[in-house]
Amino acid sequence: MGRRKSRFLRKPVEPFVVMPDVTADNLLERMERISFQGRNLATARRIWEKMLASDATIFLGTAGALSAGGMRMILAHLIEHRYIDCLVSTGANLYHDLHETRGRRHFIGTPQLDDAALAAERIDRVYDTLASEDEFCKNDEWIAAFVLKLERRPYTSREFLYKLGEHLWNETGNRGILTAAYQAKVPIFCPAIADSSIGMGLSQARHRDQTAGYVDVIGDIIESANVVIRRPSTATIVLGGGTPKNFINQASVQAEFYDDRVGGHKFAIQIVTDAPYYGGASGSSLEEAQSWGKLSIESEKVTVHCDVTIALPLLATALDTTSKDTVHKRKRPEFDPSGRLLVVNGHTLADNRYQEP
Amino acid sequence: MGRRKSRFLRKPVEPFVVMPDVTADNLLERMERISFQGRNLATARRIWEKMLASDATIFLGTAGALSAGGMRMILAHLIEHRYIDCLVSTGANLYHDLHETRGRRHFIGTPQLDDAALAAERIDRVYDTLASEDEFCKNDEWIAAFVLKLERRPYTSREFLYKLGEHLWNETGNRGILTAAYQAKVPIFCPAIADSSIGMGLSQARHRDQTAGYVDVIGDIIESANVVIRRPSTATIVLGGGTPKNFINQASVQAEFYDDRVGGHKFAIQIVTDAPYYGGASGSSLEEAQSWGKLSIESEKVTVHCDVTIALPLLATALDTTSKDTVHKRKRPEFDPSGRLLVVNGHTLADNRYQEP
Amino acid sequence: MGRRKSRFLRKPVEPFVVMPDVTADNLLERMERISFQGRNLATARRIWEKMLASDATIFLGTAGALSAGGMRMILAHLIEHRYIDCLVSTGANLYHDLHETRGRRHFIGTPQLDDAALAAERIDRVYDTLASEDEFCKNDEWIAAFVLKLERRPYTSREFLYKLGEHLWNETGNRGILTAAYQAKVPIFCPAIADSSIGMGLSQARHRDQTAGYVDVIGDIIESANVVIRRPSTATIVLGGGTPKNFINQASVQAEFYDDRVGGHKFAIQIVTDAPYYGGASGSSLEEAQSWGKLSIESEKVTVHCDVTIALPLLATALDTTSKDTVHKRKRPEFDPSGRLLVVNGHTLADNRYQEP
Amino acid sequence: MGRRKSRFLRKPVEPFVVMPDVTADNLLERMERISFQGRNLATARRIWEKMLASDATIFLGTAGALSAGGMRMILAHLIEHRYIDCLVSTGANLYHDLHETRGRRHFIGTPQLDDAALAAERIDRVYDTLASEDEFCKNDEWIAAFVLKLERRPYTSREFLYKLGEHLWNETGNRGILTAAYQAKVPIFCPAIADSSIGMGLSQARHRDQTAGYVDVIGDIIESANVVIRRPSTATIVLGGGTPKNFINQASVQAEFYDDRVGGHKFAIQIVTDAPYYGGASGSSLEEAQSWGKLSIESEKVTVHCDVTIALPLLATALDTTSKDTVHKRKRPEFDPSGRLLVVNGHTLADNRYQEP
Repeated sequence: MGRRKSRFLRKPVEPFVVMPDVTADNLLERMERISFQGRNLATARRIWEKMLASDATIFLGTAGALSAGGMRMILAHLIEHRYIDCLVSTGANLYHDLHETRGRRHFIGTPQLDDAALAAERIDRVYDTLASEDEFCKNDEWIAAFVLKLERRPYTSREFLYKLGEHLWNETGNRGILTAAYQAKVPIFCPAIADSSIGMGLSQARHRDQTAGYVDVIGDIIESANVVIRRPSTATIVLGGGTPKNFINQASVQAEFYDDRVGGHKFAIQIVTDAPYYGGASGSSLEEAQSWGKLSIESEKVTVHCDVTIALPLLATALDTTSKDTVHKRKRPEFDPSGRLLVVNGHTLADNRYQEP
Repeated sequence: MGRRKSRFLRKPVEPFVVMPDVTADNLLERMERISFQGRNLATARRIWEKMLASDATIFLGTAGALSAGGMRMILAHLIEHRYIDCLVSTGANLYHDLHETRGRRHFIGTPQLDDAALAAERIDRVYDTLASEDEFCKNDEWIAAFVLKLERRPYTSREFLYKLGEHLWNETGNRGILTAAYQAKVPIFCPAIADSSIGMGLSQARHRDQTAGYVDVIGDIIESANVVIRRPSTATIVLGGGTPKNFINQASVQAEFYDDRVGGHKFAIQIVTDAPYYGGASGSSLEEAQSWGKLSIESEKVTVHCDVTIALPLLATALDTTSKDTVHKRKRPEFDPSGRLLVVNGHTLADNRYQEP
Repeated sequence: MGRRKSRFLRKPVEPFVVMPDVTADNLLERMERISFQGRNLATARRIWEKMLASDATIFLGTAGALSAGGMRMILAHLIEHRYIDCLVSTGANLYHDLHETRGRRHFIGTPQLDDAALAAERIDRVYDTLASEDEFCKNDEWIAAFVLKLERRPYTSREFLYKLGEHLWNETGNRGILTAAYQAKVPIFCPAIADSSIGMGLSQARHRDQTAGYVDVIGDIIESANVVIRRPSTATIVLGGGTPKNFINQASVQAEFYDDRVGGHKFAIQIVTDAPYYGGASGSSLEEAQSWGKLSIESEKVTVHCDVTIALPLLATALDTTSKDTVHKRKRPEFDPSGRLLVVNGHTLADNRYQEP
Repeated sequence: MGRRKSRFLRKPVEPFVVMPDVTADNLLERMERISFQGRNLATARRIWEKMLASDATIFLGTAGALSAGGMRMILAHLIEHRYIDCLVSTGANLYHDLHETRGRRHFIGTPQLDDAALAAERIDRVYDTLASEDEFCKNDEWIAAFVLKLERRPYTSREFLYKLGEHLWNETGNRGILTAAYQAKVPIFCPAIADSSIGMGLSQARHRDQTAGYVDVIGDIIESANVVIRRPSTATIVLGGGTPKNFINQASVQAEFYDDRVGGHKFAIQIVTDAPYYGGASGSSLEEAQSWGKLSIESEKVTVHCDVTIALPLLATALDTTSKDTVHKRKRPEFDPSGRLLVVNGHTLADNRYQEP
């Protein structure tokens, strides 16, 4: 042992020591020097803190049944306090949020329930969670009725969801993802809106009036890339993978395609349960994303292989404890998502062409 | 042991016996009496055979990097010979298909490659597979140029992809997913087209002409549900999960919403690598789908937990060996996907309202 | 909505609400009404509390690189404060614990390190964690030297590990799993000791003296079953699966085989990352364990699909906050693991025959 | 496109083309140029072929419920025809093999069965597979009776399992893993024998005679390392991970510890379903194994992430078609595992000390 230590053996693992009354932020702090996914989750907190202290515009992508599973008020909190700047979501998460904001509930079940019995009672199951199909049908009608009040022109999903949040807020006054985003003027993109019950509600509006229910998802591509082009730097936080993960990365690739000064997201966190070795996008590694220019080669990044329903409550609680000041002072973009064109810091972005920064 | 055998212990496991020169179909036949995912894969073959022998319209959903990963000519084969009737795909699978149909290639790599070195050479990595970013940019431009030739009106993804396949065929004469679907008149839906490089190509057309590049993904919802409403029965085969899995199920739910004689898909196969216990749609169980009415309570169904690049070559080869006659005789729907409205067996479906069967 | 609610829809999901300064126990309390693995982790806490409040003897099984990964002082804490009564471990966890108790360290690395470079410097990698192979060799020699001091007769792994812990304590005075178990008189079983560096150390003692290094692992089977037979009830907590999971269950099955009043473990928690659908024991469900009588049909049980390095720090911190009193008052067994035969509450168990309760 | 192609883009992916009547070997041949786990499985075939053409002694490790799941006659085939030279197995695989060789069966079930109903009928479930607990109890007694006929001295698991195979063959004349290994003189190691029903049978012998049922698992460590030390090169094939995976690697590490001319296994195949990023040994990467010297830095190696019940029937059928000649001609070691000491090519290995090559 007289020899000098290897350069590889510099920073010892510090075993986690149990103590009572430890808060979430302290817990994560003491997990930074352990191994495996515990260390990665602790690292995710630090990278999120760095995002907040930087000039990065922070995209959050949400896939998986987060709203049905009890995560929606965490997402609302992150939006309201601007731990993030722009949400990209599956339609399902927005729909199940709307369901609860409208006063309906999801219910505790188990994965062993008899699905024939549930079907007979018109109850829909999401793993260990239940909801009433009749209430879902009412939501769809509510959405269709709202859609019929809109102008007869294509809306980007971003504009449509702003107006949906506004209507929901006016009607219910309840907090949730859509209403928080409305109030905080945080844009929401939903590129796969056609694959969700919100899409079904739009289609039911069309059923009544064939000029209703047009969503311009191609406009969303342009607008999201224009956000990236115009910001000094960007960051991505992905919960669950899916279309939001790729859409956020695509914004970066498309932006770089137009303006090669854009060099990929500067920070990246992903909390996923898919494995990389099957080749699918949800599980793909952040290293691979660097080859595409989705992430900067110098980006700080971490993948946490964990269910979001464990990782996110811990992470959000820790951030809320230690980062309120940072969030208050941060150089965040100010959006106005209320119109046909998205406005960032007073500058109107095009939805129909890529724009110089 | 004098007692009567339990009703549970009727059908013994038959150990797989090794023999030389065994063909894929025989291999699967002899895997029907083993356990775990081997049995499930063998069962998938039998259920697919039953689909082909029934009057079911068969939806195939494809997510994950199947085209980049060498599966595209299997999908083309399934389309050409009508082992399936309607494709629902992620944009990426269609885009990487187009890349090869245009004569470009994907390349063999490894997951250990240095992504900074790849980025420096403008090479994009998908796990162990590589492609040239410059070639991708050329594809995007090619798509944009095509889009600019189209009428200035919203196209459903189904109509747009038919025309894209037609153009690709006329220009290249090469086989592939898009060109096979064009020739076999198999409709393709791509509900998340905005989350793909095809979407990026559409957006680049819009960049040049702001009236170009409108995709009516809400029309896709209506059209896909109308296919279900008008068919005596339907079946779903899902490779990889993602938006195609849910979109196919949604068609069934939306159809039942409109016409309660529709009772969910009658057959279901899914080959997925995601686990059900995280609550996400990709890994969700087929039992759970029954609670929603996505699948019939009496449906025959199987989940195979396996990478598609192992399961599909085996499955497709087996079907091609034993089911050519069945496929030839099957009661399949005849589509005409060439126009604004989809035609099934001579009947024109609406894209703007749900229609009586 | 006028109709009566279904019996299935009684207990709503309560969205998790973010607040600062929340402690681990409060975090878990507020995760009881969410879904998926978050709910399961919160349930695990409640079931562990019930174990502690009952008369159950609590077995803990540990597999995976927990000690190398920074979990060893949590395990030491659980042993010292008797949150558990009997440890069943892989050899690796005990070996990596011994490594640190002897003053050596594991180090922070990354999974992307160049393994040829590590091999050249004689550094061993466990995913993102590193250690010196030369130090490991010294441990092996240290173990061999200790083994040569023992009597020349077979030792159960339980007796051997007690003496190893004693020697380690006498030499180092440092806390750790082995030394905590020595001091708290908590027995440790290591059924797969031959598959570990502790086994390698034993074999190196044999290399020097062919009468040394005999471990009686069959005696461990008898002794562990005798613990179950003589206790009013038992409970199992499994971290990671592996041989410890099955060995704890086997004790229950073997006990019932001998005395049919034993009805399986009354409580069960498992925190695993393997999936059930491949048929392996590590991922097998707790429901399946009931068919074997490993668990009682009435047992309270939960599976948490999560990396232990995330779940355990949270769980142990919560228990340490709320359950100190319960632990203090609990009806725990008092072991004397110092001799050839294990003593429980003054009663000597046989290691060579199954004994009446 | 005028520029020279990158060095990274040399070998294109060749899309798999569907054809009827394709045999398993041809299937794998055509999967070598696809991606992801399909390519890896095809590569595993090639590496196994290279093992057979080399002078390597081939270790096979088997974990997971392979015998219950219908894989036991494949393993018997691999042993009989010497596709492998030495088996390292969990006890469960040998026990469930013995169950069928004795004329009992496992049965087809489903994972949805009611485990309380199964328990009431004394039926044990392994995911989708069932067996009679009464028959299992009879096996345990049969093993115990056999053990009581042995000399009263410790047996290595290798010697014990040889004699168990011999007894089973003499009594039943049936093929299976244990009887094939007996006849082909292929040694079997079972380092975790205490964690299995074979161990339970041994313990029941001890219950009747306290001098019976001693297994010298430390002797197994020495003997397995001595096999490695004395062979020109070695190879490892791992199915499922678990203790066999590590035990085979440990033999290599221990051998190198004694004789530094041993440089780790020269070829490695693992077919596993565990992920590497949780730090456990079952899922650990083959690259990581190189840092430890378990594998040579120059080793040819591949990991296939797939259920063995899909991968193995395909792989074994392919090998049986194309490699009969290679197997016939290979430079394989000739073992005599019948005595207290293992004999390799006429040379007797010690079980109590490491031996010069």
